[in-house]
Amino acid sequence: MVLMERTTTPTLLLDRDICKANIRRMAEKAQKQNLRLKPHMKTHQSVQVGEWLKEYGISAITVSSVKMAQYFAKDGWEDITIAFPCNVRQLPELNDLAKDISLTLLINKPKTVSLLEKQLKNPVNTYIEIDTGSNRSGFVSDNITEIKKLINVIEKSNYTNWIGFYSHAGHSYSCRSTKEISAVQNSIVSQFDTLKKHIEPVFGTFEICSGDTPCCSIADNFGSIDAISPGNFVFYDLMQTQIESCGLSDIAVAMKCPVVDKYSGRNELIIHGGAIHFSKESIIQDEKNHYGTVAQKVDGHWEPIDDTSHLKKLSQEHGVIHCSKQVFNNFDIGDTITVLPVHSCLTANLMAEYQLTDKKGTKVGMMD
Amino acid sequence: MVLMERTTTPTLLLDRDICKANIRRMAEKAQKQNLRLKPHMKTHQSVQVGEWLKEYGISAITVSSVKMAQYFAKDGWEDITIAFPCNVRQLPELNDLAKDISLTLLINKPKTVSLLEKQLKNPVNTYIEIDTGSNRSGFVSDNITEIKKLINVIEKSNYTNWIGFYSHAGHSYSCRSTKEISAVQNSIVSQFDTLKKHIEPVFGTFEICSGDTPCCSIADNFGSIDAISPGNFVFYDLMQTQIESCGLSDIAVAMKCPVVDKYSGRNELIIHGGAIHFSKESIIQDEKNHYGTVAQKVDGHWEPIDDTSHLKKLSQEHGVIHCSKQVFNNFDIGDTITVLPVHSCLTANLMAEYQLTDKKGTKVGMMD
Repeated sequence: MVLMERTTTPTLLLDRDICKANIRRMAEKAQKQNLRLKPHMKTHQSVQVGEWLKEYGISAITVSSVKMAQYFAKDGWEDITIAFPCNVRQLPELNDLAKDISLTLLINKPKTVSLLEKQLKNPVNTYIEIDTGSNRSGFVSDNITEIKKLINVIEKSNYTNWIGFYSHAGHSYSCRSTKEISAVQNSIVSQFDTLKKHIEPVFGTFEICSGDTPCCSIADNFGSIDAISPGNFVFYDLMQTQIESCGLSDIAVAMKCPVVDKYSGRNELIIHGGAIHFSKESIIQDEKNHYGTVAQKVDGHWEPIDDTSHLKKLSQEHGVIHCSKQVFNNFDIGDTITVLPVHSCLTANLMAEYQLTDKKGTKVGMMD
Repeated sequence: MVLMERTTTPTLLLDRDICKANIRRMAEKAQKQNLRLKPHMKTHQSVQVGEWLKEYGISAITVSSVKMAQYFAKDGWEDITIAFPCNVRQLPELNDLAKDISLTLLINKPKTVSLLEKQLKNPVNTYIEIDTGSNRSGFVSDNITEIKKLINVIEKSNYTNWIGFYSHAGHSYSCRSTKEISAVQNSIVSQFDTLKKHIEPVFGTFEICSGDTPCCSIADNFGSIDAISPGNFVFYDLMQTQIESCGLSDIAVAMKCPVVDKYSGRNELIIHGGAIHFSKESIIQDEKNHYGTVAQKVDGHWEPIDDTSHLKKLSQEHGVIHCSKQVFNNFDIGDTITVLPVHSCLTANLMAEYQLTDKKGTKVGMMD
């Protein structure tokens, strides 16, 4: 009987109801806070999830690559920000995009402007990136002199139009409570409020867009921020529950994997589901790497099957689940088992397809 | 001038000469040791690399999934082992494969045999997996009673033919010297020699196949082992150099990535090349996670550009390279930079295409 089910290989399940509830919550929050929601599409990379976003009035989106911008532009999205330091090696592709849509690029250096202006044929909007604490890319917010210089360079160029500032507060991922998330957000708001006081009198009004899922999910203080661009919130995952951005019941994706072997001496199930399905992203739990939590659906939401059963090790195709005796006894070779992923963005990127948890098990495509 | 090069996005370079030298070395070693080389194709997943293997007389291969078996069977390979605990949910696919090729499966439980025999329509060969110390899957080698029972169950079934034992000594990946690798190999050989003494008098001759890249690269003692199935050796990577399976000059793949931003205060270059290109696999160096080493070609081999420049952090699409002042000054926005990957199997799986380092920059495809 077990063999009659249709799952033959690792499958990424997507619960539409949970996903749409996550979208609705964020859209309502943005509306209440008078923020424009420009969701980041890198998590789901799917025109279908894009359709659900449209139902909540979303018209502008954020992506992390030119390829992703092309994919969503082809689906009719007309206002796209590529939230990645502009890759000048893709100028032909950028020219093509800028011909058809309102394209916004991130520019952090005068050098990028000079390389762009030699070949850009259509106008683009530009954000300058602010490094609000993640130490990845962008200006620190009090580097007013250099920021003003770059705005001038951008404004002087014929094809680049400066529209404001962008920040991804990646450092919120090291938070472990809503209190810590709020503290990060307060720091971001304070940095932007000060920056605005320096820039607005000289250059007039502009937009501030900030968008990490932890802060956008939890914070109430948005100060001078005008727009948000969270991405992960559509699905959430174990990492976000550890940060306290969401509850376990908000997680909208789960991996369904065949059980292929089992070892009673150590209470371990071997599944088809490895690093090329889950990704090697891990969280630390009880001082050990942890790649996923065994889950079951209860009242329409996934919840951990118990306190201990988790994915402890990943090879390329194998997963090793360490579990309680009860879970061990409940699963046999030929069954499937469901595991909540640590980082839904990377898992989705690897799986490249969703299966909805509707009765039909509808398949939903992603970017190639 | 920089912009005239063809690399626009992260690109996985493959040096054919280094790869073929790696293949030749392993093929010659196998011949000298009187071992059959049944290379694992999961590292490269490419019919082109398969062609190079054929040049050294290889006729039997190992894969880690049914999909990979289908891909290589379509390319004309007629002797394929799926070195993964048999996934009984893929019986229709297994039946199709067994119709056309000599298919070998891994069976570790009587339950798997009983599920197979209900639906299997064509005969398959089977290995029983021996857990020689990796604690992933298979019988411990001294569990003679259960091993004998399973051989009997397999032999009784009409469509399963027992041919021997298989082991992947994943625990060799924790070695950090050739001496440690040799110790792991000696332990494996000792386990198999003892097992053979118990099994051969009862069941007659059979084959023993063992195949992790560290042991196959370094060991000289193969005892009762008849065949080897290493995979990573075709490319090697930083992880293998840390284990001491190979030298840096043996690494056959490298990532070429656009530099998109730079930060002089912290000597950091931002590249297009993130977790969805390299994978999140890391090694520990100086007590920190390390995702790649900045390299340059010298005398036909990649070598580290200096002692310090490395990939220190990965987001989904961003990489952060921490480098020496000299390297920092030598690379600007719009350039490309080359990085040796930590785990070539996972990087190749993500990149899904190679670019040869020949003059034409020939593209080489992989399994979809």
